[in-house]
Amino acid sequence: MYNLAEKIFPICRSITGNGVRLTLEYLKEEFADMKIYEVPTGTQVFDWNVPKEWNIREAYIENSKGEKIIDFKDNNLHVMGYSLPIDCDMTLEELKKIIYTQPDQPDWIPYVTSYYKERSGFCMSENQKNALQEDVYHCVINSELREGSLTYGEVLLKGDTEKEILLSTYICHPSMANNEVSGPVVTIELAKWLASLEKRKYTYRIIFIPETIGAITYLSRHLDIMKKNTIAGFVLSCVGDNRIYSMVETRYGNTLTDKLLKNVLRYHYPNYKLYDFMHRGSDERQYNAPGVDLPVCAVCRSKYGEYPEYHTSADDLSLISEEGLQGTFELMKKCIRALEYNCYYKVNCLCEPQLGKRGLYPTISQKGSYDAIVDMRNLLAYADGKNDLIDISNQINCSIDMLIPIIDKLEENGLIEKSDLSE
Amino acid sequence: MYNLAEKIFPICRSITGNGVRLTLEYLKEEFADMKIYEVPTGTQVFDWNVPKEWNIREAYIENSKGEKIIDFKDNNLHVMGYSLPIDCDMTLEELKKIIYTQPDQPDWIPYVTSYYKERSGFCMSENQKNALQEDVYHCVINSELREGSLTYGEVLLKGDTEKEILLSTYICHPSMANNEVSGPVVTIELAKWLASLEKRKYTYRIIFIPETIGAITYLSRHLDIMKKNTIAGFVLSCVGDNRIYSMVETRYGNTLTDKLLKNVLRYHYPNYKLYDFMHRGSDERQYNAPGVDLPVCAVCRSKYGEYPEYHTSADDLSLISEEGLQGTFELMKKCIRALEYNCYYKVNCLCEPQLGKRGLYPTISQKGSYDAIVDMRNLLAYADGKNDLIDISNQINCSIDMLIPIIDKLEENGLIEKSDLSE
Amino acid sequence: MYNLAEKIFPICRSITGNGVRLTLEYLKEEFADMKIYEVPTGTQVFDWNVPKEWNIREAYIENSKGEKIIDFKDNNLHVMGYSLPIDCDMTLEELKKIIYTQPDQPDWIPYVTSYYKERSGFCMSENQKNALQEDVYHCVINSELREGSLTYGEVLLKGDTEKEILLSTYICHPSMANNEVSGPVVTIELAKWLASLEKRKYTYRIIFIPETIGAITYLSRHLDIMKKNTIAGFVLSCVGDNRIYSMVETRYGNTLTDKLLKNVLRYHYPNYKLYDFMHRGSDERQYNAPGVDLPVCAVCRSKYGEYPEYHTSADDLSLISEEGLQGTFELMKKCIRALEYNCYYKVNCLCEPQLGKRGLYPTISQKGSYDAIVDMRNLLAYADGKNDLIDISNQINCSIDMLIPIIDKLEENGLIEKSDLSE
Repeated sequence: MYNLAEKIFPICRSITGNGVRLTLEYLKEEFADMKIYEVPTGTQVFDWNVPKEWNIREAYIENSKGEKIIDFKDNNLHVMGYSLPIDCDMTLEELKKIIYTQPDQPDWIPYVTSYYKERSGFCMSENQKNALQEDVYHCVINSELREGSLTYGEVLLKGDTEKEILLSTYICHPSMANNEVSGPVVTIELAKWLASLEKRKYTYRIIFIPETIGAITYLSRHLDIMKKNTIAGFVLSCVGDNRIYSMVETRYGNTLTDKLLKNVLRYHYPNYKLYDFMHRGSDERQYNAPGVDLPVCAVCRSKYGEYPEYHTSADDLSLISEEGLQGTFELMKKCIRALEYNCYYKVNCLCEPQLGKRGLYPTISQKGSYDAIVDMRNLLAYADGKNDLIDISNQINCSIDMLIPIIDKLEENGLIEKSDLSE
Repeated sequence: MYNLAEKIFPICRSITGNGVRLTLEYLKEEFADMKIYEVPTGTQVFDWNVPKEWNIREAYIENSKGEKIIDFKDNNLHVMGYSLPIDCDMTLEELKKIIYTQPDQPDWIPYVTSYYKERSGFCMSENQKNALQEDVYHCVINSELREGSLTYGEVLLKGDTEKEILLSTYICHPSMANNEVSGPVVTIELAKWLASLEKRKYTYRIIFIPETIGAITYLSRHLDIMKKNTIAGFVLSCVGDNRIYSMVETRYGNTLTDKLLKNVLRYHYPNYKLYDFMHRGSDERQYNAPGVDLPVCAVCRSKYGEYPEYHTSADDLSLISEEGLQGTFELMKKCIRALEYNCYYKVNCLCEPQLGKRGLYPTISQKGSYDAIVDMRNLLAYADGKNDLIDISNQINCSIDMLIPIIDKLEENGLIEKSDLSE
Repeated sequence: MYNLAEKIFPICRSITGNGVRLTLEYLKEEFADMKIYEVPTGTQVFDWNVPKEWNIREAYIENSKGEKIIDFKDNNLHVMGYSLPIDCDMTLEELKKIIYTQPDQPDWIPYVTSYYKERSGFCMSENQKNALQEDVYHCVINSELREGSLTYGEVLLKGDTEKEILLSTYICHPSMANNEVSGPVVTIELAKWLASLEKRKYTYRIIFIPETIGAITYLSRHLDIMKKNTIAGFVLSCVGDNRIYSMVETRYGNTLTDKLLKNVLRYHYPNYKLYDFMHRGSDERQYNAPGVDLPVCAVCRSKYGEYPEYHTSADDLSLISEEGLQGTFELMKKCIRALEYNCYYKVNCLCEPQLGKRGLYPTISQKGSYDAIVDMRNLLAYADGKNDLIDISNQINCSIDMLIPIIDKLEENGLIEKSDLSE
């Protein structure tokens, strides 16, 4: 996964434009069944309109000696996103009015955009700005803002039922590693793994969209089917560093997705950080908006807005790692396996079944002899048709990973039956 | 307010009689639209009957030298409330049988009554009682207990709806400051403020009654309309000192009034003291009785029964202050403003509205740029028609005082609509 | 009770056989109305079949000098329960394969059984096993495993209603004191006490059964009537030592029995230990199985599995005492009295009743004068027809023992009425 991250890291993405298209092409190389869609500028999407398309070829600031003091080629964060073209000379005083810095992190270039008000701007470190001398600077932004379209990618993997699980990630930030490339990289890997499964109970809707306007655009086209079918969903963002795991709850923290994530994180990554919906920030904002009401949580390692390198040039490839990406991939596989197994289970007889005659029970009874089968007995005690697998796991304090082989054994012996959640 | 408190402090009130009438006259001078009612002795009011009316002109104990050792003129707490008339000589031993003291607070005269069993009694400090010499004492209580009536005052302020908010306070204790005059003084000020408002959504029922028997009498005459219309209510008692705020919950602590008071107190007076219904003591006892079931909490500063001066001569004018009274007045205004604004709010579009095009959003996006509008965004996220304003305030951790101007702005922009609680 | 415990302690019980019969005969001597039932080997009981009947006459291991190194006569724990007969010589190596010990408690003989797989075995202390010398040992188990029956006892005490309270205890362990004889001894004493009552609202079903297979057998014959009528039930096990009290919750901890036990234990034995259903172990497993769903908790002093002597020879008569047994007897009487009194209470008037005119209230009102009747006032405040007596006790923080005389007084005065839970 890290190799793919390296490939797409340098691309200058924004919420529209060729950076998005090029990123989607790389992803399509990994997973050929991805479909790519274009939505024209001006299209009404709920309370919004698809904005003009922005592209940029080059940008720099040159001093009077002809030295480039910053250059878009070195770091695409140097240009404020959606900057209008300029080509002019400026005094230091004039220049400073269109330079953006992050004064509390003086070594780093901040990530700044102005999507919905037309202006031009450069970004640099606070230290570099402070070191600028009086001079006449030649400022060039060779960009274009015009009618065009918004681009997104979609993978649909059919399952046995129409009920869907949503995976959503964004492809709209320039060169940042954790807060951009980690999301699509892990998500495309999950698409490949899901496509490789022999059997899928659920249908998977996997989308690669520009944040906010892309989610709004996508929802405006698919809201009815998504409201009808979605049983769980995940926004994947900032999933490549090696620090703790975290999640953001839905609006009321009470959906199947919340219950599932809290269960899996509790058993496998118990020092994870739980954020309530006050701490939302990515596309879970749209999925959980009133009237949209989809059961979608955000899954992160170091959550956006909560780690120092966030939205700066320090969020580079050194911040993420193969291990970091792989960790999230494994977490998501555990979640998906748990969802695929999740249903209401019911024991098939009255009173405890006689496990001994089926070879599932120690034949000698002595203090301590039942310790080995405590999880099986507890599962049977709560398989009363009122609990799904996650409830049982929570109730009997045993991870779903450990319950799955027990369920297989009990089903083989005809001792429990399932009643599907989606029925 | 303190001036009015000084005026009504010296009056010798009881649950009936001219002290109540005189107090109501002073209040009517402040608010001419108050109506005053008389209910005749003997009237059945639920399980009770209106008692005889009690009045007193003078009372004293004189020693054999003709010195008055206590005199009702000096402090009307010296006579047990509802004492029958006497005029006789007593030995020290005889006298002591009808003297009441508070031995654990030996410097103070206690407040003692015997409403429902006829007897006579004097009250003095434990120290004074212990210093009494053998002597023949001339004891006089020039009082009268006879058919008459129970008196109460009522202010009704019509609003846009029939739904009512109740303010209830009592006027039946003799010269005590916090535990008597503070209640009617703040309540009449609230009546004046409410009457001055341009617009009131709710109707306000504001009553000045003798405690217990007055509340029972009032409820026996108005129970149906109050059960039909009351959405919230407050008993105001002990609201004039400068110490902490406190409230007493309803029977199950789950009404709109409980929710409102806890919200307002939490944000503005976070060190307030919450008492459950086990700690009830004033007329919230009647309003919350089974079958009455009105959503009425008690609001206090130092709660009755919980401060040392309670029900003694030490609860005098030095215990209350203009600041103390004003503080409760402000608290109650906050509560009433919150109730008037309280309703279910619903955002008018799907997904987040585009705040930028309405000038409600920063046009530059950079780390930290949204901090200023976090409350507006949170309010929109929970304006799903399932939360009233108090719920939203609790959920997003922002006081109603801060939400009101945001609601005004969002309504001006047509982004939210309300659905009234009373509909 | 301790005398009866001494009588039945030496009997070698198992889940079937003459040890059970003899134990029930002793209990029938205490309470002649007990009925004794036999269920033939092979009878299908839900997922199980009644096993063969096991009896044993003698057993020992003799060394080559003719010395008995262990003898069933000395301690019936020396033979693994349900051992097949043997009579043969064995080398030390052969013998060790059929010797069971508890290595972590090397001085004690463990209690070991093999009900559902046929084998033979001896039990001894780990220390004795380790001290065995190379020798030829003569091993004798003079037992018999053949068609027969499972035996249990039942006492039914009719009440005013068909609604039932279940008391269940087991009679299937050999010589252990807390974890065997304490249960039947306290239960038969409760039967005698219940039979002596002038009046019983509820019917009492009191059963003495072999653990697990006996409970399954009993339920297979009585499930419908028990599901229809049982309002509360108790498994009594390990109730004779002098240590803390404990209880095991039902499957969800939310039945009347859970509520009752938590209330009584909280007020009278506040350092009791609450175990959730994960810690079940006795017949509450069957009573709470999915589809059976009876509201049955286990009541213990030191709970099975949680005290060191459990299931070893150290659980002997020195572990229990008359005080220990009596303590549980008193706890259960409190529970039963509370159940018999338990119903929904409703006050008969609106607002507070006038207690004074009925002599239930102090006639003088002064700070502190109401302290004596605070429980009566609180009970009246919550007697709204929505709370049963246990709810009220919990709400107003006053034990049911203290509320019962108050209820009697209020009923005499016509101030409250009841509405029976069973109606």
